[in-house]
Amino acid sequence: MSPKAVVLLSGGLDSMTTLAVAKAEGFLPCAITFRYGQRHGVEIQAAERVARAMGVAEHLVLDIDLRRIGGSALTADIDVPKDRDRDEMDAGIPVTYVPARNTIFLSYALAWAEVLDALDIFIGVNAVDYSGYPDCRPEYIAAWERMANLATKATTEGGRRLRVHTPLIDLTKADIIRRGLELGVDYGLTSTCYDPTPDGEACGRCDACLLRLKGFEEAGVADPIAYRST
Amino acid sequence: MSPKAVVLLSGGLDSMTTLAVAKAEGFLPCAITFRYGQRHGVEIQAAERVARAMGVAEHLVLDIDLRRIGGSALTADIDVPKDRDRDEMDAGIPVTYVPARNTIFLSYALAWAEVLDALDIFIGVNAVDYSGYPDCRPEYIAAWERMANLATKATTEGGRRLRVHTPLIDLTKADIIRRGLELGVDYGLTSTCYDPTPDGEACGRCDACLLRLKGFEEAGVADPIAYRST
Repeated sequence: MSPKAVVLLSGGLDSMTTLAVAKAEGFLPCAITFRYGQRHGVEIQAAERVARAMGVAEHLVLDIDLRRIGGSALTADIDVPKDRDRDEMDAGIPVTYVPARNTIFLSYALAWAEVLDALDIFIGVNAVDYSGYPDCRPEYIAAWERMANLATKATTEGGRRLRVHTPLIDLTKADIIRRGLELGVDYGLTSTCYDPTPDGEACGRCDACLLRLKGFEEAGVADPIAYRST
Repeated sequence: MSPKAVVLLSGGLDSMTTLAVAKAEGFLPCAITFRYGQRHGVEIQAAERVARAMGVAEHLVLDIDLRRIGGSALTADIDVPKDRDRDEMDAGIPVTYVPARNTIFLSYALAWAEVLDALDIFIGVNAVDYSGYPDCRPEYIAAWERMANLATKATTEGGRRLRVHTPLIDLTKADIIRRGLELGVDYGLTSTCYDPTPDGEACGRCDACLLRLKGFEEAGVADPIAYRST
């Protein structure tokens, strides 16, 4: 029987590709998604579409209201930056950074993995075409994995080893798209925009949209999702 | 002005003592408490009493439903063990273990610390008179602190260092109680029991009660809280 793996699924392009990689590597994927008060709540619907289309074993959608903590343009009343060029994106960690988001998400993934008797967690972090978030870097993931192996009953009393898989971490966005298309991923199901219309149309101007559009352009394929006409 | 510190506050004896230590060390304590679906929900009321009595700067009570994840006698329909002796307690990690609980709690503390511009987190873990939970041990805390320093904008872009304080980690329960009494802690406000009556009377027989009662006995003082008459 295939071993279970917990896959963090946001409904975006990267996490859908990561889910496809987990399946291709022979894991039975159990997807976990967070309704954390993000302004782009339509990504939850995207995550549900993706989970269904990819035939996950289970899909857990957790409500964790990070608006209570705040500190980010994604969860508080702060404008999402638009039309930034690459130099602006590289100049620092932007206001869309959510304090400790991946640390919070991964901690739930760790708890669920233990209950599922799974020893593998997949996360679609990327440290190439990204917004400079510290919790997407390889050194962060390595330190998190080391901590996690000291944290649970399964890995201490049980003596087993938990692994965090980051199949996209050193790929460009174009490489990610090519890899996903090879695996048959339908990117029309995904949602990437930080500031979509209520019916899910992407703005085409936030960092996330700009990185996505550049990726499709470099991969030489058309992006199948709808963008707001301006 | 005193620097802020985030203090994890359950409403139990250890966390109240930790809060008193944080104050005595000159920090302005901001307490964080989790309503996580624990059967001993009366501890939330204890945390509120303690926070008020200790004059914290802020008290954040977060709802995070760990029953969705399960796997513990504290959040699922599994009996809490009673009347265990020390050998039984030392024989392994008990069913009251909650998968990745401290990892989840600390991840929220990290997010809140960043928003508060705090660089200090206090947690009342103890690795002497405890139930053998892996996420209470010093090696776990050290690995968590290392991970946290790679996780946030404050500690990477900002170049500052976050510290996790564990003032109780190598104290016996009797030492913890003596330290708290020196600092003027009123343990009558706390709640420790895993399986209290709805009006908050302690069972006196779960591991948490037994460790507490032994601590008061060894410290040579009476425990001021009410125990269920059997």
